[in-house]
Amino acid sequence: MNKFTQVQKYMILISKSQIKLITSLHQKKYRDKLGLFVAEGPKVIKELLDAGIKIHSLFSTENFKGITQNFYIVTKREINKISYLKTANTSLAVFEIPSQRPISENGIIVVLDAVRDPGNLGTIIRICDWFGVTQLVCSLDTVDFYNPKVVQASMGSNSRVNVLYVSLREYIEKSNLPIYGGCLEGENVFSQSLPKDVVIVLGNEANGISKEITSLLTKKITIPQFGDQKKTESLNVATAAAIIISEFKRK
Amino acid sequence: MNKFTQVQKYMILISKSQIKLITSLHQKKYRDKLGLFVAEGPKVIKELLDAGIKIHSLFSTENFKGITQNFYIVTKREINKISYLKTANTSLAVFEIPSQRPISENGIIVVLDAVRDPGNLGTIIRICDWFGVTQLVCSLDTVDFYNPKVVQASMGSNSRVNVLYVSLREYIEKSNLPIYGGCLEGENVFSQSLPKDVVIVLGNEANGISKEITSLLTKKITIPQFGDQKKTESLNVATAAAIIISEFKRK
Repeated sequence: MNKFTQVQKYMILISKSQIKLITSLHQKKYRDKLGLFVAEGPKVIKELLDAGIKIHSLFSTENFKGITQNFYIVTKREINKISYLKTANTSLAVFEIPSQRPISENGIIVVLDAVRDPGNLGTIIRICDWFGVTQLVCSLDTVDFYNPKVVQASMGSNSRVNVLYVSLREYIEKSNLPIYGGCLEGENVFSQSLPKDVVIVLGNEANGISKEITSLLTKKITIPQFGDQKKTESLNVATAAAIIISEFKRK
Repeated sequence: MNKFTQVQKYMILISKSQIKLITSLHQKKYRDKLGLFVAEGPKVIKELLDAGIKIHSLFSTENFKGITQNFYIVTKREINKISYLKTANTSLAVFEIPSQRPISENGIIVVLDAVRDPGNLGTIIRICDWFGVTQLVCSLDTVDFYNPKVVQASMGSNSRVNVLYVSLREYIEKSNLPIYGGCLEGENVFSQSLPKDVVIVLGNEANGISKEITSLLTKKITIPQFGDQKKTESLNVATAAAIIISEFKRK
């Protein structure tokens, strides 16, 4: 009770313009226009701060170590009002979108062709981070890296992965690296010798890699299906990313 | 337009008791009591029919090949009323929960300790199916196999995976197989010789495998983290399942 009374002293109401700003960042066009995105929960916010992503404003029901400027202690009800989540966390922060760094031509570069599900992109970002892959190239119709659901699913890993949205055809045509692509009709990834410097293309949830991009691949690879029945239609794209990236990394 | 008029001839209203039944199956206690579960969309429904899962009733805005009994052509509005999805599909079916078959002591048995997220369980079921793993043992606090979100995420793979909900301690203590568990502090899974007949335990999203079950493991294994920074906290449990199960299968 004491703690509650203490917090109450600093409590302020979120202004209408702040609510409007935060709500607008749901949409990609406003994120692009304002160069801002939203992250929720102390864990994700802390990861982004540690990675040096610049903070714009922070709203929290509790104190937040190390942040003094543009920091607002708010009520649970206020957080609920601005949260994108079904169950609001204790804190919500607005961050500045970092400027795009160029993608360098070494190591593994993961390329996504029209991945649409935010959960899948977030999971792929975590997988890249886990395996030390810091370069991600996305087609223009891939879900936005700063979509709130992507930010939450990537659990702070987005602060360590450099992303570029670009025409894939142009990107691949300019690249000097071998272009491997995950395709159901590809060769067994487990029995290949795999290059260290490589572009790995993964495709859309329903349709895989587009025809146009498939025609540009150096090699098609697949994850072999085991079992007698072989009825599973496909693996989820994030599952495929996990197995394929781990296979390239360990070799 | 013609097609629409033709369908309309057979259109009937869903009865209140049908709506009540379908809505009640959202809850595990009614699924258990009635021995029924819901699946949506022609793809998932067809997979379950092909696998011989007995159908109770089917509601669809279109004809459905091979089904004549307890089949109701309904309007889009009617489907929206009974659907569990944000965007209703063209069809919804009620199926009978198959009776539990015993788990046999050979091959790979995947054991889940308190996996809570329906999307994760659904993805793990798909992974099992892809790699020909047909035996899944879940702790009593793992999300229900027939939860509607699990059914949708498993995309029909649940028809080919045999599941058992049980006290894990009892199950593991009775088993004669080596018990491997995915733990952050485990040994590198890529550099182990791995048994063909094995129990693989995977843990809760936030806390991993419980202390009690950890104490029963024969061996702890982990997926090595690459990269200089090593800041990624963990891999998603479905991602870990994909990499670990594929590693056991290929060896």
